[in-house]
Amino acid sequence: MRFSLPGTGDVRQVPVFGCECKVCCQARVNVRRRRRPCCALLETPQGDLLIDAGLTDLAERFEQKGLNAILLTHYHVDHVQGLFHLRWGMGEKIPVYGPSDVQGYADLLKHPGILKFMPAAEPFQRFELSGIGVTPIPLQHSKPTYGYLLEYNNSLIAYLTDTVGLPEQTQIFLKQLLKERRIDLLVMDCSYPPQNTTPRNHNDLNMALEIHHSLRPCRTVLTHISHEMDLWLSDHPDSLPDHVQVARDDDDFLF
Amino acid sequence: MRFSLPGTGDVRQVPVFGCECKVCCQARVNVRRRRRPCCALLETPQGDLLIDAGLTDLAERFEQKGLNAILLTHYHVDHVQGLFHLRWGMGEKIPVYGPSDVQGYADLLKHPGILKFMPAAEPFQRFELSGIGVTPIPLQHSKPTYGYLLEYNNSLIAYLTDTVGLPEQTQIFLKQLLKERRIDLLVMDCSYPPQNTTPRNHNDLNMALEIHHSLRPCRTVLTHISHEMDLWLSDHPDSLPDHVQVARDDDDFLF
Ligand SMILES: [Mn+2]
Ligand SMILES: [Mn+2]
Ligand SMILES: [Mn+2]
Ligand SMILES: [Mn+2]
Ligand SMILES: [Zn+2]
Ligand SMILES: [Zn+2]
Repeated sequence: MRFSLPGTGDVRQVPVFGCECKVCCQARVNVRRRRRPCCALLETPQGDLLIDAGLTDLAERFEQKGLNAILLTHYHVDHVQGLFHLRWGMGEKIPVYGPSDVQGYADLLKHPGILKFMPAAEPFQRFELSGIGVTPIPLQHSKPTYGYLLEYNNSLIAYLTDTVGLPEQTQIFLKQLLKERRIDLLVMDCSYPPQNTTPRNHNDLNMALEIHHSLRPCRTVLTHISHEMDLWLSDHPDSLPDHVQVARDDDDFLF
Repeated sequence: MRFSLPGTGDVRQVPVFGCECKVCCQARVNVRRRRRPCCALLETPQGDLLIDAGLTDLAERFEQKGLNAILLTHYHVDHVQGLFHLRWGMGEKIPVYGPSDVQGYADLLKHPGILKFMPAAEPFQRFELSGIGVTPIPLQHSKPTYGYLLEYNNSLIAYLTDTVGLPEQTQIFLKQLLKERRIDLLVMDCSYPPQNTTPRNHNDLNMALEIHHSLRPCRTVLTHISHEMDLWLSDHPDSLPDHVQVARDDDDFLF
């Protein structure tokens, strides 16, 4: 199974329109420095599974190979805007799983087109999609938000964004889980560089590292990166502990 | 002044995701056959003016040259979705003009970022933007919608989409105007091939040609084209009267 990160940016993405910081200027010249809307893709022999739909070129990306299902973490525009470009397509319905959120975003739930919004996934209840075990775990954000535990063969990935810290129930659930097995790959919200006060809605590096140290995965990859975070990193090279790295768009991992 | 059409597609665009019709298959192979979300761009020595914001790459397009203002015809997603990618930018505010629509689309009016939604433009009241005379004229659609008369030097462009026919007040206003001068370029909604019954929300070719014959512009360009319209055209070549043509993405006209 191939697990990749087609987008690793925050709501503003990188470059930020009109920003003249070092990071944004570099990203305009070097496409590899850009950050698209945050998402993940799981490719298995049974089909493709997309986590979040903020990319605006989903039709082109999945025209040929198809898309088995979409998992949404939450209904913020940077995580769902690509659905506007898919919904009036033709052919088989694409099931969309996510947290309970009666509002959804804009008119997506009212006019789903070929999208099939499934009944809200139950927290902590494992289900199977394309041969992958999927367990939704509640996160802490400004909208109802799920992270996902993803099991394939003997590998365990935890995809935890958008979030600021972890709700207590989720901490208890994960600690129980960790008695039995280790997380192979933790992908986590780290929108901001270290802050002096507790950040709102998203982890800063302090909180992200706190979660890393508490869950002790084999490897942690930081995502949902803002231009401020990139700027801080370029001024503080070698500041991340072992086993922690910052994601880049299109990073991939084989399991 | 350069007047161009960066997008000429309907809400589904061309190719339609998953569609295997001749038109959509061709568009996948030949990018020049694709149709992006319907919009227009006016470039004058005083700056750039964009009509509708459905393109998702507005940040890249206008990063260097800037954007003086945006005129919205209406708040349907295929005409505003690009604003999601601009609003969290930095620098000068971008004024956005449009019809009165308290809902707007999604959370755009509530969280405008660098967009400055101006008080609703008054119907039939001319104002100036970047050296262009702009007169909003009400159209007939499923949301409050304006077409725009655009005057530059001695040239007159009428941009009329999305619409099905024209409201009576608008017809009266245009007939009065035509006593004094001719429309040089009429750009008009022609989403559908000829229908047997009156179409909903958008012109079919019958209604588009009826408006063309009634307004008698020097030239009419059909836009907001669906894959069905493209398919019909490929099966009925040479079926358009003189002075009427179908737009292609990036068509441009100099005034
Ligand atoms: Mn986000
Ligand atoms: Mn969010
Ligand atoms: Mn439209
Ligand atoms: Mn419309
Ligand atoms: Zn920046
Ligand atoms: Zn088609």
